[in-house]
Amino acid sequence: MKPSLIVAAIALACTFIAPAAQAQKIDVASTFPKDMLFLGDALKQFAKNVNEVTDSKVQFEIHGAGDLVPPLEVLTAVSSGAVPAGYDWVGYWGGSIPVTNLIGALPFGPPPEVLAEWMWEGGGKEIVQKAYDKYNLQFLPCASVPPEPAGWFRKEINSPEDLKGLRMRIGGLAGHALNKAGATTQMIPGGEVFVSLDRGRIDAAEFSLPSIDESIQLQKAAQFYYFPGWHQPSSILSVMINKKTWDGFSKLQQNQIMAACRSTMLWTLTNGVQSQMDAVQRLEAQGTQVRRLPDSVLDVLRKATDDVVQEEAGKDAVFKEAYDSLQAHMQRAKRWQELQQLN
Amino acid sequence: MKPSLIVAAIALACTFIAPAAQAQKIDVASTFPKDMLFLGDALKQFAKNVNEVTDSKVQFEIHGAGDLVPPLEVLTAVSSGAVPAGYDWVGYWGGSIPVTNLIGALPFGPPPEVLAEWMWEGGGKEIVQKAYDKYNLQFLPCASVPPEPAGWFRKEINSPEDLKGLRMRIGGLAGHALNKAGATTQMIPGGEVFVSLDRGRIDAAEFSLPSIDESIQLQKAAQFYYFPGWHQPSSILSVMINKKTWDGFSKLQQNQIMAACRSTMLWTLTNGVQSQMDAVQRLEAQGTQVRRLPDSVLDVLRKATDDVVQEEAGKDAVFKEAYDSLQAHMQRAKRWQELQQLN
Repeated sequence: MKPSLIVAAIALACTFIAPAAQAQKIDVASTFPKDMLFLGDALKQFAKNVNEVTDSKVQFEIHGAGDLVPPLEVLTAVSSGAVPAGYDWVGYWGGSIPVTNLIGALPFGPPPEVLAEWMWEGGGKEIVQKAYDKYNLQFLPCASVPPEPAGWFRKEINSPEDLKGLRMRIGGLAGHALNKAGATTQMIPGGEVFVSLDRGRIDAAEFSLPSIDESIQLQKAAQFYYFPGWHQPSSILSVMINKKTWDGFSKLQQNQIMAACRSTMLWTLTNGVQSQMDAVQRLEAQGTQVRRLPDSVLDVLRKATDDVVQEEAGKDAVFKEAYDSLQAHMQRAKRWQELQQLN
Repeated sequence: MKPSLIVAAIALACTFIAPAAQAQKIDVASTFPKDMLFLGDALKQFAKNVNEVTDSKVQFEIHGAGDLVPPLEVLTAVSSGAVPAGYDWVGYWGGSIPVTNLIGALPFGPPPEVLAEWMWEGGGKEIVQKAYDKYNLQFLPCASVPPEPAGWFRKEINSPEDLKGLRMRIGGLAGHALNKAGATTQMIPGGEVFVSLDRGRIDAAEFSLPSIDESIQLQKAAQFYYFPGWHQPSSILSVMINKKTWDGFSKLQQNQIMAACRSTMLWTLTNGVQSQMDAVQRLEAQGTQVRRLPDSVLDVLRKATDDVVQEEAGKDAVFKEAYDSLQAHMQRAKRWQELQQLN
């Protein structure tokens, strides 16, 4: 054998013995537009983190809302395996997976850091996973949303009486609670919220965070911006992965993906508030009236929420297990918070 | 060349072309005992996370306090390169690196989630790194400590007058503030705190979190356990790595180590409170009186803290830059907190 052939043989053998690692590309169908402020950014952060820790051997390819499947069909598509992964506000699946109502937006629920604590270290994700098992999905709680304001109102809310007959865009458990308090609630797709509010077809609307609300111009459709975000003090965004895809990752890759997920959760926990306060200041400069809902209104909504949650807990075992566990966790966190309060 | 020789040549060539990856072992000198509750556990979590994401190609080998160098010499040892990495409560270096007093324990400072936000996304770690550059160190803020209680007292504190002449074990900026308020403060090594308090050589002592205080039996030396932790509402533990070691990592490895660090920060943010409330309940069951410092006392300490911080800011440029940046960040976070407060 000539030296040149030996070299060729060596090169060939090495190719088989240590093959160049192929990147594994995973399509992920987002329920949000790819470039949406914060909500889209968190998924980009996750994909970047996975790239970094896996040396690009696992790559999540982001497809914006509607590119692969309609946003509200992401759950079905990932569950069936038609799409290997999805990214969502978990509350979208409240109709199919009741516990997602709880971690998507529990009115008067925990602040983000307490929800994250329960989710990661208080048993939360294990309880939620039980519900996802039935859909053949691995649940990864990779992002947290800061509390969203109570919403935009075209008239002042000074007492519980002002809720009666109020037509508001809002969904989930909070929508049920508002209905109990006398309002008429409905879900309106994001793209139609501005027009509905601006034309007075509704009296009020909650959409998202100040920076996002500002980007869809809600400040031009209503004057009063109410706080606190009683309806959604915290919220989880998740990456869900079809079980077959998940089981196909090596243990190393699963660990790397989970580290990327935790790193993204820290990014969202440490990234949400700064830009919101900047947005609130810009909105005020444009004439928005920032107000606080009266305690009397919050009291009525809290009572209505308790009734709604009890009803839901009666219907679904995983919802009940999660709610009881989260409540116990919140009680402990609340006493700590009171003991450590500085003002 | 015989076929067997060709095979040998191929095997040899492959060894050189694609060598079996060697684990890179990095000694890390901890300032805490290896198995210390929470404080030691966080470093174990970091080492585990690094192992997992690097497929054990980078391994941090933990050496407990004193095993390689005395705890308070860790900074010098890592700075010189005698030890490649260290793990600390950053406040230990307040004498050499003044800004570590700020992120170690700023009295009336930010809660953990706000400090983490400033550190990771508000410019904090970049400012702090400037001070570490002079010591040839890469600064990794990998862990956060929940607020520590105000401490154990052998007598009640009912008014600012009760601070006068009080002999207390406490250090850092809070110690200076207490001195301004009339107390006599001193630092006493952890191993001697119980005896000093039990024998009445001091009237009060702060040491750490309830679960840790309980483990060194402080409940048997004093009756009153005061909150809130005005002196240390949040705190950073860091991994510091000699620059030469850090620069020797590939970009991939640096990214993996940072992901492991962020993941550890999330672990500490989501792990601290639960076990503390369990400890508080056990302490109460044993007879400890859990009390809250009167507002009049907190007001005096707040005023004294302002004076101390202004003095420190006048002495060190990085301290001043960090303090101004953190204050601006806290102001924004405070308004958000007030807007979103549910009760």
